[in-house]
Amino acid sequence: MAEAAASTRKLYGYELSSNSVRIAALLNEKGLDYELVVVDDTKAPEFLAINPLGQVPAFQDGDDILFESRAISRYIAAKYRSTGTDLLPAAPSAKLEVWLEVESHHFYPAVADLVYELRVRPRLPGGAPPDPAVVDGLARKVADVLDVYDAHLGAGNRYLAGDQFTLADVNHMAQLFVMSLTPRAAELVAARPHVQAWWDEISARPAWKKTVAALPLPPA
Amino acid sequence: MAEAAASTRKLYGYELSSNSVRIAALLNEKGLDYELVVVDDTKAPEFLAINPLGQVPAFQDGDDILFESRAISRYIAAKYRSTGTDLLPAAPSAKLEVWLEVESHHFYPAVADLVYELRVRPRLPGGAPPDPAVVDGLARKVADVLDVYDAHLGAGNRYLAGDQFTLADVNHMAQLFVMSLTPRAAELVAARPHVQAWWDEISARPAWKKTVAALPLPPA
Repeated sequence: MAEAAASTRKLYGYELSSNSVRIAALLNEKGLDYELVVVDDTKAPEFLAINPLGQVPAFQDGDDILFESRAISRYIAAKYRSTGTDLLPAAPSAKLEVWLEVESHHFYPAVADLVYELRVRPRLPGGAPPDPAVVDGLARKVADVLDVYDAHLGAGNRYLAGDQFTLADVNHMAQLFVMSLTPRAAELVAARPHVQAWWDEISARPAWKKTVAALPLPPA
Repeated sequence: MAEAAASTRKLYGYELSSNSVRIAALLNEKGLDYELVVVDDTKAPEFLAINPLGQVPAFQDGDDILFESRAISRYIAAKYRSTGTDLLPAAPSAKLEVWLEVESHHFYPAVADLVYELRVRPRLPGGAPPDPAVVDGLARKVADVLDVYDAHLGAGNRYLAGDQFTLADVNHMAQLFVMSLTPRAAELVAARPHVQAWWDEISARPAWKKTVAALPLPPA
């Protein structure tokens, strides 16, 4: 029966895409089994029938099909509220809503641009080493965003939404992990003690360790 | 007492910013009074104390201070669920979550880029008329997004989340209104019958008419 339950939840993604890992991290916090379906071609008709926007991740949960990683994560957190870790505050939370959106519109795009320049673009066919001036500009944007986080976390907020570990924290973990593997990005975290302490705490969670252990990373 | 209640809710924004109008539209659907505080300088220390990211809108509701327009709208919809129109489905809704995120990451950026090229950039100091090739490329992106909406709305969804008018619809209205004032953008809506019918229906709502009536627009 466990297999039957798992087979109703399918995560369509790439194993190393941070938006796919966002969902894996959440499912592990909730203790929910799922099947990873690696998508070879996001523009193939079979996949466009699942996500007409042609991007991973997508998620199937019984009859429900979802796309957009933050929609998937919020839906799972609400639908399976009483399973595993409860990631939603009991009452409407201004902090939860604000920091979910700060992740979406500030943290993620700034970090993604920096990591692309440092780790992705140089490895593309014909890719050149990172441009130091470009890296400096992108790092400045990440630093400005992290300054806002450091002030928030230093103002009596153990987690982004306050005292409770929530979906707002989970939604950041895949990108923070990519930063931790990228020295120039990791130093931006290390320079901000409240951000570093928060990352140290949330990355020590068993569900996160399980998430990382499943990633096809090269040996450290 | 009505004045006292209103004075506890302050919307910091610009009257014609679509992200500020997003919140005004929602507050009108909920029948909630508020004070609009027009922000002259988003980088001034007084405003950075409200939103450290230095952007409008921000919102104060008693002791809660929020920024990021979609965080504000979701928080109001949840906190004041039983006031005015209930904009959240009773149970966790895959459609609600998906279409809130499609607005955030596909509809809004595509429309904003097109409207900027057509209406904003030409009016800036030294601005030149819109570049036809640039406009064509941006219009193609909007068209691709609207095709996904047209298919969804044509597949038995009266509103984005199904049978119920929800926050997912409200979050689109300010940008759809800007499109309606921009002939090249309006024709992209008109060419998609399900999108046009949806816009016709939601823009006829009294709360939306009240929202538009308060905007300092030139006479038609």
